[in-house]
This record gives sequence, structure tokens and C-alpha cells, in this order.
Amino acid sequence: MRSLLATLLAFSLAGSALAGDLRGTGDLGVVVERANGKLLVVEHTGDTRLSEIEGLGDLSHASVVFSRDERYAYVFGRDGGLTKVDLLKGRIVKRVMQSGNSIGGAISQDGKWVAVSNYKPGGVRIFDATTLEMVADIPAEYTPGKLSKTVGLVDAPGNRFVFSLYDGDQIWLVDMKDPHKPAITRFEHIGRAPYDALITPDGRYYIAGLFGEDSMALLDLWHPENGVRKILKGYAEHDEKLPVYKMPHLEGWAVAGSKAFVPAVGQHKVLVIDTADWTILDEIDVHGQPVFVMARPDGRQVWVNFAHPDNDTVQVIDAESQHIIKTLKPGKAVLHMEFTPRGEKLWLSVRDDNRVQVYDTATMTLLKELPAEKPSGIFFTDRAHRTGL
Amino acid sequence: MRSLLATLLAFSLAGSALAGDLRGTGDLGVVVERANGKLLVVEHTGDTRLSEIEGLGDLSHASVVFSRDERYAYVFGRDGGLTKVDLLKGRIVKRVMQSGNSIGGAISQDGKWVAVSNYKPGGVRIFDATTLEMVADIPAEYTPGKLSKTVGLVDAPGNRFVFSLYDGDQIWLVDMKDPHKPAITRFEHIGRAPYDALITPDGRYYIAGLFGEDSMALLDLWHPENGVRKILKGYAEHDEKLPVYKMPHLEGWAVAGSKAFVPAVGQHKVLVIDTADWTILDEIDVHGQPVFVMARPDGRQVWVNFAHPDNDTVQVIDAESQHIIKTLKPGKAVLHMEFTPRGEKLWLSVRDDNRVQVYDTATMTLLKELPAEKPSGIFFTDRAHRTGL
Repeated sequence: MRSLLATLLAFSLAGSALAGDLRGTGDLGVVVERANGKLLVVEHTGDTRLSEIEGLGDLSHASVVFSRDERYAYVFGRDGGLTKVDLLKGRIVKRVMQSGNSIGGAISQDGKWVAVSNYKPGGVRIFDATTLEMVADIPAEYTPGKLSKTVGLVDAPGNRFVFSLYDGDQIWLVDMKDPHKPAITRFEHIGRAPYDALITPDGRYYIAGLFGEDSMALLDLWHPENGVRKILKGYAEHDEKLPVYKMPHLEGWAVAGSKAFVPAVGQHKVLVIDTADWTILDEIDVHGQPVFVMARPDGRQVWVNFAHPDNDTVQVIDAESQHIIKTLKPGKAVLHMEFTPRGEKLWLSVRDDNRVQVYDTATMTLLKELPAEKPSGIFFTDRAHRTGL
Repeated sequence: MRSLLATLLAFSLAGSALAGDLRGTGDLGVVVERANGKLLVVEHTGDTRLSEIEGLGDLSHASVVFSRDERYAYVFGRDGGLTKVDLLKGRIVKRVMQSGNSIGGAISQDGKWVAVSNYKPGGVRIFDATTLEMVADIPAEYTPGKLSKTVGLVDAPGNRFVFSLYDGDQIWLVDMKDPHKPAITRFEHIGRAPYDALITPDGRYYIAGLFGEDSMALLDLWHPENGVRKILKGYAEHDEKLPVYKMPHLEGWAVAGSKAFVPAVGQHKVLVIDTADWTILDEIDVHGQPVFVMARPDGRQVWVNFAHPDNDTVQVIDAESQHIIKTLKPGKAVLHMEFTPRGEKLWLSVRDDNRVQVYDTATMTLLKELPAEKPSGIFFTDRAHRTGL
């Protein structure tokens, strides 16, 4: 009887919680193992691995958003796959191939809608976050019969999504009040070839980088009636041009207090921008071409990683003095960094050394290493509570 | 066999999850039922009640912080009780009577330490967040043999706590690097009778209100070596004095962009302060004496409730124009308000009508009401991810 009980209990627990018992989800996260299409589920209280989830398809350039209860992750794969993952059970809930080629997504403010940005067919598709059924298909038709690749898709306050049309030189604002009939506002001629975008942490300003010109396009979402204006004109023209090894991610902008720290495309510099008038205040010389420029949640430090051939290095900038206060050599190919919610630790992925490292941000020293196969993106669940992540 | 299996399964599930099944904790919260010493566990995705927890003692002026995994709540009762509650199981994990009279607490940046601010005996005590064992006792001895009431206890980046000595006219900064031997920095003569304090959302500035003079005391935690300075001198002197029905909570300051919105003590006004130099920019006339002045997470709206006899009213200020855009009459005795993490909804407690209301913040309309017995404070788990909450 005793062993029958034990067997039945084991069975019932396995059924209700494959990867673990009842637990909080505020300290969970995922690490993308790009090469083998896997996710590691991790937790950042004890800094451990909890489970592995296989079968996510092509995870190159994959990104992740979270449900508002911080239980589910939505994974956007390059192959057009949209996968909903249960972090508590450590398994896939549902997976749909929603396009031929996609480049990231977003979840609405109310948590009900997941939007995916597609290259092929060019446009945005919106899914019910519970069921992954498609509720809206928005082809990015910028001229009759022509669909644009879409980029820089983010969520915005007021249950809106914003994205840019790479081929169409436009920004579209999507209001999800009526989810089956989203209201679309189109901003045309915003500048040539927007290639990525960001939204400021307060959700007010949407800024698209322009591949075709030396400036950026800014939309004030408190005043969409004012249209899009150009900022930072000529921000890259005053220096020798270097070959661009990797376009910086605009999501990697850091806003700390009234300053934004921005990777300068193709230069060994981080630009410091005044967010009151979007002019350049300063330039900081750094070790290589910056890729991600990320502010610690308290805004006192800015951590920077770099493009090849300098991607073995991470530098820490003091946001107040703008001096580099630390240069770290974590290992070969540092691809991504993620702060814990209140910033006491930072995780980073070292792809070619097959490990994830955890740093104490107060001392900027290594606390721990975890094994991971070719890790790239690291995403923690507190993103669920923030705009634009 | 089938019914034995069912029974055993039911037994095993009841043991692992009394109040509910496996679920995320990012959308949980608690509502304090002050009169009967109870907590309601709630969730703000569907806006429902999940469970009730009894036996928390005197909950007048109770406040709550959360563990970094968002599973546990720490409840600070007026009677000196410190209670750790499991939100998933809907029950008390541990309860200690740690003093005779206390006034709030905080949890350290790394989530390991819970600090409680005491009136009697005057001082701060610090507990292991897992076990509730006391790790440090810090009597607020400001002169030999005299202990001060402590107020305005908050957490700060760098695993520090900050609090003020009401009787001692001091601010103390506690560094938890060595938790069993916290390093204390004392700032003396900071102004007469600090009665409450706040820390800005980025964790940089600690500001104590002074009951004994017409100004506030500011400590820049990036530069504690510069000491404490007075700001907003004479901020209340230029108007007729009204009897103060309720001291405003300084936690109720709202920081939106570069402006802070502050309740003016004893006046029917909200002050607008420039956070760059801490001077008054403007005053906004409001319906009564403001108590909580809270910014929606995107900083576009500021919601205000009022002291008796105007506590049936809530006003919404547009942060940009500084105009009042809505006056609501939720019911008798609106005591507290809490935004959902990304600000699409606001919950408020209407004590004397025995209900909690949920508003859509975009339309400022009522979405739903929940029954609650004499509800006061409302606290959502995303506070775990923020500084000073």
C-alpha cells in the first residue's frame, strides 16, 4: 500500500508539475540556445537552471515576451514560428507557424494580444494570447500590391502596437480597442528604410533608426497628431566610416534619468543624448562597435557589449561621470545581457564558451557560471510588467 | 481502484496547493481588510478574489512587501506583528511579534532581508526573509539612553536600507553587505521631526518630510558624502493654514518624467516640483486635502484621493497640461489606490462601502466591483521588482 501510494503520488505530481512544484514566477527567465532550438528555463534567486524545452525551430535572432502573470513565454523564431511555453511545467503549450520569416514580437498592455512582425509575407499578425488563434492580419501594403518587411514592433500604452515598414518608409500605429478590427494610423515618408526601433521606458516616444539616412524618426505617442519628425540629423557623419559588423539593436538603448545612451552605428562610441530635446550631449569612446547598451534599473551604470572582433569584452560606464569604470573579458562572443529586476545582478551569455555568467553589479565581479549550449538571448519574466520589452 | 486513485490524487493535490493549482504569481496581490485582521488574495488579470487569510492581528496602517519570486507577502502590522504569507497556498507561513508598535517595513534589493520600522522599542529590526529569524537589531539611540521612533524606512540600491528618526532628527543609512553586522552611516541635525519619507523610483534620492519645519530633507544616495540638504523651504507658508485631517503619505508622491507631484500638507493643492533642482514649478487646485498622489506607470496621468471630509472623491490630473481631466465619486472613504503593473487598470478601496473598484485608466470608467470588508491597502506583487515599494 505504501509503495502504491508513493507511485500514485509520484504520478499525480508528474502530471501536475512536470518540471517543478508550486512556485512563484517573478524570478524566472529563459535562455535561448540558438544552435539546437532549445530554451533553458532558469531562476535568478539561486541562479540555477530549472528545465529544458526542445522543439522551438530556428531560434536565430529569437526574442521572447511574457504573459502578464509571468507564467508563459511567447517565443518568436526566425522561421515564423510562434511558440507558447509554460515555464512552470517546462513544456510547449502550443506552437504555430504563422509566417515564412519573422523578426520579433510584442504583447499588448492588457496581456490579451500577441503581435508578430513578419518579413514574409510583409506585415504584422495578431494572436489571442490564450489560444494563439489569429485575430487580425495586417499586411503592410505601402503601395498597391507591394508588401513591406516590418521591423521595430513594440507595445505602447493604450493597448496599442507600433511598427515600421522597412520598404515602405512608414510607421504604423495600431489601436487594439476592437481587436478584430484594429484601427490603423499610418505615418508616411518618415525617412528612408527604418531598420529597427525602440520605445522609451515610459511608452511615450517611438524612435526608428533609418538605414537610408543619417538621422532617426521620432513619433510622440502622446501627440500622434503632430506626426513624425527627424532627430539626431548627421549623428554619424562627423567621423570616419568604419565597416559595420553588426547593426546595433535599438532595443539596446539605455535611458538613465534624462539621458539616453545610444550605440553609434559603425563607430567605437556610445552617444549621450538629452531626452528633453533629443540632441547629442556627448560621445564616449568605447572598446569596439557597441551592440547592446543597457542601463542598470537604477540608471547609475550602463553596460555595453560589442560586435566582432571585440565581442569578448564588456564595458561598464558610470552614468553620472560618463567614465568607463570597468572592462570585463567574459569570454568568446558575448551576445546578450539581462539585469535582474532590481539590478543587483546581471546575466550575460558567452556563446562560443558555452556558458552563461552571473555578475554582482555593485562590485562588477563574477558570481557564478552556468553551462548552456551556444546561448544567445536571455529574458527574465519581469519584462511582463514593463512597456516595450 | 479508480476511486482510490481519485481520492489519493485529491489528497496529494490538496497537500501541494490548498488555495489553487499551479499558477503564475505576476498578477497577484493582496487587499487588507483592516477591521477583521484579514488579507484577501486577489488577481488582476480577471480581477477576482482567490482566497482569504485570517489571523494577521492589528492591520491598521498595515503595509506589505513581496519576495523577489512574487510568491510570498510580508505584512507589517501596527501591533508589531510581522507575518509571512504564501499567496499560492493562501495561508500564513510564519508570524512573529517583533516589537510592541511598528510602522512599516521594506525588503532588500537582493530579497534576502526584511526590515521593520518600530516605534516601541524605537529602532529597526532586520529579519531573514526565508525564516523570519532576526539577524540585526538596530536601536535608534540618538542620545545616550534615548531611543527614537523610526519612520520612512525604505530599501535602496546597493542592498541598503534608509530610515529617519522622528525624535532624533536624523537619517540613518544601513548597508547590508555583512548582514549580521550592518554598517550604519548617521546623518544628524537633518531638520525637526521627520515624519515620513520616500525614495525616488530610481532609488537615488531619499526625501523626508519634516513635521517641525516648513521644508524637507534630501539625501542624494549617489553622494552620501555630501550630506543632507533642505529643499522646498517655505513650501506651505504662503497660504492660509487649514487643519490637517490626515498627514499625506510621502510614498504617495508621483514622479512622472522630470516632475514630481506632491500633496501639499493641509491645503487643497498638489504641488508640481522640478526633480532636477527640487524647486516648485506649479500648484494645482484640487478637491480637498490630498492623501495619495499616484502616477500611472507611463507618467501620463496622476490619480489623487483625499482626506475626510472629501474622501468620497478621486481626481485625475493630466501630467502634461496639469489640468484635472476627471472627478470620480467612488463612494465613502476611498483609502488607497494601486495601478496594475503596466497601468491599464487601477484598483481602489472604498472602505465604508465595503468594496474594491477596478477602473479602466484609458477611459477612467468603472469596470468591476469586488466585495471586501472595510478594505484599506491594496498591494500588487510587481512591487517586488521595484525599488522603494
